[in-house]
This record gives sequence, C-alpha cells and structure tokens, in this order.
Amino acid sequence: MTGFPMRPDGPTRRTMRSTGSLLVDNIGELVTNSTGGAGGPLGLRRDAALLVEDGLVAWVGPATDAPAADRRIDAEGAAVLPGFVDSHAHLVFAGDRAAEFAARMAGEPYTGGGIRTTVGATRAASDDELRATVRRLRGEAMRQGTTTIEIKSGYGLTVADEARSLRIAAEFTGDTTFLGAHVVPAEYADRPDDYVGMVCGPMLAAAAPYARWIDVFCERGAFDADHARAILACGQAVGLGVRLHANQLGPGPGVRLGVELGAASVDHCTHLSDADVDALAGSETVATLLPGAEFSTRSPYPDARRLLDAGVKVALATDCNPGSSYTSSMPFCIALAVREMRMTPAEAVWAATAGGAAALRRDDVGVLRPGARADLMILDAPSHLHLAYRPGVPLIRQVLHNGVPQ
Amino acid sequence: MTGFPMRPDGPTRRTMRSTGSLLVDNIGELVTNSTGGAGGPLGLRRDAALLVEDGLVAWVGPATDAPAADRRIDAEGAAVLPGFVDSHAHLVFAGDRAAEFAARMAGEPYTGGGIRTTVGATRAASDDELRATVRRLRGEAMRQGTTTIEIKSGYGLTVADEARSLRIAAEFTGDTTFLGAHVVPAEYADRPDDYVGMVCGPMLAAAAPYARWIDVFCERGAFDADHARAILACGQAVGLGVRLHANQLGPGPGVRLGVELGAASVDHCTHLSDADVDALAGSETVATLLPGAEFSTRSPYPDARRLLDAGVKVALATDCNPGSSYTSSMPFCIALAVREMRMTPAEAVWAATAGGAAALRRDDVGVLRPGARADLMILDAPSHLHLAYRPGVPLIRQVLHNGVPQ
Ligand SMILES: [Zn+2]
Ligand SMILES: [Zn+2]
Repeated sequence: MTGFPMRPDGPTRRTMRSTGSLLVDNIGELVTNSTGGAGGPLGLRRDAALLVEDGLVAWVGPATDAPAADRRIDAEGAAVLPGFVDSHAHLVFAGDRAAEFAARMAGEPYTGGGIRTTVGATRAASDDELRATVRRLRGEAMRQGTTTIEIKSGYGLTVADEARSLRIAAEFTGDTTFLGAHVVPAEYADRPDDYVGMVCGPMLAAAAPYARWIDVFCERGAFDADHARAILACGQAVGLGVRLHANQLGPGPGVRLGVELGAASVDHCTHLSDADVDALAGSETVATLLPGAEFSTRSPYPDARRLLDAGVKVALATDCNPGSSYTSSMPFCIALAVREMRMTPAEAVWAATAGGAAALRRDDVGVLRPGARADLMILDAPSHLHLAYRPGVPLIRQVLHNGVPQ
Repeated sequence: MTGFPMRPDGPTRRTMRSTGSLLVDNIGELVTNSTGGAGGPLGLRRDAALLVEDGLVAWVGPATDAPAADRRIDAEGAAVLPGFVDSHAHLVFAGDRAAEFAARMAGEPYTGGGIRTTVGATRAASDDELRATVRRLRGEAMRQGTTTIEIKSGYGLTVADEARSLRIAAEFTGDTTFLGAHVVPAEYADRPDDYVGMVCGPMLAAAAPYARWIDVFCERGAFDADHARAILACGQAVGLGVRLHANQLGPGPGVRLGVELGAASVDHCTHLSDADVDALAGSETVATLLPGAEFSTRSPYPDARRLLDAGVKVALATDCNPGSSYTSSMPFCIALAVREMRMTPAEAVWAATAGGAAALRRDDVGVLRPGARADLMILDAPSHLHLAYRPGVPLIRQVLHNGVPQ
C-alpha cells in the first residue's frame, strides 16, 4: 500500500472548505437521521436551524435559538435533508448503449455485446475522455442532491485500464471500488481461472493504491462463489473493504458469502431465500437495493418490505451505468422504492442517506448532527415526502457540500 | 361570449417575442415530427440547424447550409426536440395532500376527503395564492421542456370559484378547460341533478369567457353518461371544444361518448373494451394516457400497445394535480410509458409532443417546421432515446418558448 489517502474525500475536502460560519435558517422540516428516536426514524425537527463551521455541522436546534453567523441562507420553510449517499455507481466508462436499451424495451434481440461493448469503448478512450464523463455524471448527481458517491472500476479489465479507472475515480471520491471481477473479458472467455489469478495478482496490486473497496459480480455467467471468495479474500488481505453484486438475476450464494466475509454491503438482493434474509438480519451487512436497474431492464423489483420487516438495514443507490441503469437520480430511486418496493417515504429517504452511509461504513455523512460533514440539500418542497409524492420533478433547490453551496 | 382572445397563447405571445433572427446550430439529432415519413415517425434529421424569426421556425435544414443570423446557439451535437405539449394539467388549486399520498402508499386508510380537501383549500385561497401556485408549477414544467400546457379548473365548484380559476389559468395559457364537473361538491351531494343544472347554467356562463375547452370527469362516483352528455352539449353550444376524463377507474361509457361528441381527446383510457378501442381507431379523438396517475396511485397502467396497434392516436400528459399525480415532468411520463406501457421511446416522444398537440387540436406546436412556433428544447444528451434511457435525470439543458430562451 502506498501513502494514497484512504480516508474518504481526502483529496478534495480541504480545498473545498470555506471559511467563516454559515447559518441555514428557517428550515420547515429538518431530516437529521439523528435524534435517538425522537422525530421518528428520520429524526425530524420542525422550524429548525443549522450552523456550519469549517465544513462541518457545528450546531442544530430550534430556529428561535439560532446563533449569529457570518452568512445566512434562508430555507424559506422548505425541507432540508442530509445529502444523498449513492453507494453504488459505475461512472468510469466510455460509449453509450441507448440503442441496446431501446431494443430491450421493444423486446427485440440485440447482439451488441452488453458490458463488453462498454469495455471496448473504455479501453479505447483517453484519460481525459474518461475524466470528462465522470465529471459530467458527478456534477449531474450533485445537482440532484448526491454529496457522497461511490465509484467503481470494472470496464477496464486489464491491469492498466483498471488502475487508471480507479486513479481517475479517486480524483472525484474517496469511496473507490476495485471491480476487476465485473465480467470475464472476451480474451479470457475460455480460461476464467487465469483471469481470476490475474485479478488477484497484478491487477489488484496496481489497483489497490487507488481503492478503498473490492467488489465482485457474483452471478451465474459472471463469477461463482469460489472465484468470488478468492478475489475478495485477496482484497481483504491488502486492506480493502468488501462489497458484492449479489442475487440480482437469480438465487445464488452471493448474499451469504457477503455476510460470511463481513461485507459492508451486498447489492441488488433481488432474488433472496429465507436463509439469505436471515443471514442479513443477523449481520451488520447492508442490503443495497438498486431499483433503477429493475426499472431499466423491466425486471421484478426486490422485496424491500420483507427485508425491512426482518430487521435488515436497507440502502438505496442508483447503480448508475450505461447498460442496465443509466440514472444518476437518487430522488427517482426513492420514488421507485415507494411505488414498487413498498417502502414508506421515510424509509426510502433514510435508505438513500443514512442507509447509503452505512453501506459505505461512514458515520460522517448521511446524518446532520454536530461533527458531521455539512453535506445537505434544500428542497423546493416543505417535506421529505415530496421526493416520492412528486416523482420525476427536480426538487433540489440548493446543495451544500462540505458546507459550500454548489 | 366576450372579446377574450380564444386563440391559444394570445395574451402572452406578443410580449414574449424577441426581435432578430436566431440560429440553433450544430444539432446532432433534430426531432421535427414533420418529414412525411423520412426520418421515421419522429422525422429525425442529423447534423441539422434551425432558424428562428419573429418567434416562429423560419427554416430547418442541414447544418452545412445554415443561413446567417443575428444570434446563434450552439447545440454542441445534442438532440433538439419540439417543446412538450402537456395537454392535461390541474394547476389551479391550493393545499397539499402529501400525507394522503403517504397513507395510500402504505396501504393505510385515509379519511382526509380526497378532491374535496383541495376544493376547500382552493375556495379559501386568495387569487394571488392561486396565481403563485400556477406560476410555480408552470415554471417547473417549462424548465422540464413543457412549452404548451393545458390548465383546467375543477377545484372551485362554485360559479365564482370556477370563473376565477379559469381567469387565472388564462393568464398562463390559451388552452384553458372548464371542469366544473370534476366532482359533485359536498353541498350538492344529495342533489346531483341540481349541480349539473348549475354547471350548465350560471357556472358555464361565468366560465366560458375564459375557457377554450369543456371537460367532465365521467366515472362511477362522479358524473354518469347522461350528466356528462348534457354538460358537454351545453359547452359545445357556447363554442367550447370537448374533452373527457374517461375510463380511468373502471370500464364505462366515457370513451364512446367522447368519440360520439367529436371530443379532441379522451383522457386516462385505463379500462377499455374492444368496442372502446374500435371507436377510437375510427375517429379523430386522441387517447391521452396519464401514467403519472397510475404511478402515484399504484394502479395498473393503460395498455398503450393495444391502442397503438389498433391505429389510435395516443398522447401523453402529466395529469399534474395534488391528489393523484403531482408530477409536472413530461420526461418522467415518457420513461414510464416505455417501461410500463410498452411504447417505444420514439412513440413516447411523439405522444408527448405531436400527440399532445393533436389532443389540443393544435398544428402550430409539437412540430418543428417552417411556420410552427419556435418552441423547442436542447437536451443534455445526443438523442431523444435518452429521455427514457436516463429516467429521472433532468436532461433539459435549454428551452426556447416563442423563440425566446427561458
Ligand atoms: Zn452495479
Ligand atoms: Zn385529470
């Protein structure tokens, strides 16, 4: 391991901090995710104010008690929420698969090549082209309230291309994830064991300096449980945290493998057995649901209600990628979670903020309490309910990241 | 009838026109809805340019032949579409029904009163409060690409409140619709015939000067076929065009009544018999589908494929209202139409532009050809496909209304 900063947002945090105090005042409804049960699961406060100092939340309380500050933002009675934490995004890629999407929606066969199409385009792209795509999507997500985002590699699938994917990702986030085991690339199609050896050996060595996490697509047609276990163990050995793509397309061993390895999160969770749900409920592993993928592939949604009722911690994320879920919108995922997965609006908002933070093992984001990062959004609406009640409407009026208006 | 301008957008058109010519250049994909079959159903042109003069489209052609102009907008290879035509919106209201929405999504009973809650709040609101809500939602829709919008009354349900609802609506659009027959108000609950008499008599007389259309909610629990026929006939007699809310909650006579009366559009069309589909296919009446309502009430979607395959002209609209569909987003409706109603992205984009125009019997909008209004949007995307491919993402980079950047 090198001296690359492993703390999330190390590279950008200092430069984006502003000086002086900032009061966000006249907040009609403040989602804190932090009142120990008062204010419901979201820790709601009414008629609140929030003080920002040095990029952090310094104080939260009633508007009538608001302290003096150098600057002030009047929320005009609107709702204020922690910034969204999108814990699952594939932003380092090139190319576009709109035609594949249109064919899939029309029920027509499409022989374009799926993920491998994107792999080819990504390998052919320059660093600056990849960087421009990440910057565009990161900006798009920020405007929709996402202040923390995880970014995976997984469209390079060579030593050099995985390393540069993560190097570029690390320019934008501290939550970088090495996904060399996304799919077996075409040139290794008839010798997957060799590919796994390469992932665990030189590819991991080249990628690890830029990565916080390791991830495997554990699914029929991608990597089986033995391969996944081997790859994740290698990652753990060099200090990376574990997360998995699991049980998306059918039942399988991914979720239980994740729990066994102490994964921070298992993602998708669309096809779960009772044993999978029990394993999650008895663990600290978060089930991250990605309804954008089911929307864009016209697949059945995961059963969030079953997970919540069993006591599993649930997160929502976008899975933003050009193949199966090309959305960067956490509000859209919240609306889908309520409509299609029977989450309440409060559960969905929690899952998109504090849930995402738990899936990244972060306690400095997804919450608005003294000491947390001043990552928050002011809605064009009086309540968090409106994120589901007003689907598709851009409701994010203003975003603060590290206390700085974006 | 008074001298009130009945031509759509009469009141605002002149004041919003700019002078001088404007070239929109470097258009990667231009949706014209107007090439007589070339370029597919959307009349697509590649590498195009479009000249605006005096608020109208003056010229469309290859970018290489673009004429000189006083000003220029570089579309940078993006897609350009006609502005959306949202032919069904209820924007004149007061109050908020977020709690009712949350209860419905949780499957809990809610005794808040439905439409009548909004009627009470609307009657209690000042003109300026109602105007502010319309302005807010009209602006929100414009930022999402909607350059033409129909606005209904229907939350006043007294002579004075229906007239003022339409008077305020007419400040924002020429396509105003008198919907006194939205629901029988509480004070007439036990004498609906009297209410229908009032709608046809003094209420219509007070509303007609501000209205282009008349509409009835023809559904079990609202107005039956006899009442609907009587009300619509009265409206026709004073020169209003006919549209209906029909067959939303169950099978019924609304669609066939609409066809019989030569309605411009029958809206919802969720529960259709073969006879309903046949009637529509043999008529000029548009079937306007409102998938936001099914999304927000967790109801089955209408079968757009069946209508399209039968040769029915289909439009998409938002049904924006605080009870059953509080979205102003036409891109969201397009994404739902593709995911849930098996429309192709091209069919959905056509339905949201030219289809909406047909539902309002307009030939000056929903199309980009010389002589049409210069109402258009530049996407943050290379193709119209992205409106469905990138669900929930705000993709509207710039909107021109009457040739004026918004
Ligand atoms: Zn993924
Ligand atoms: Zn309606």
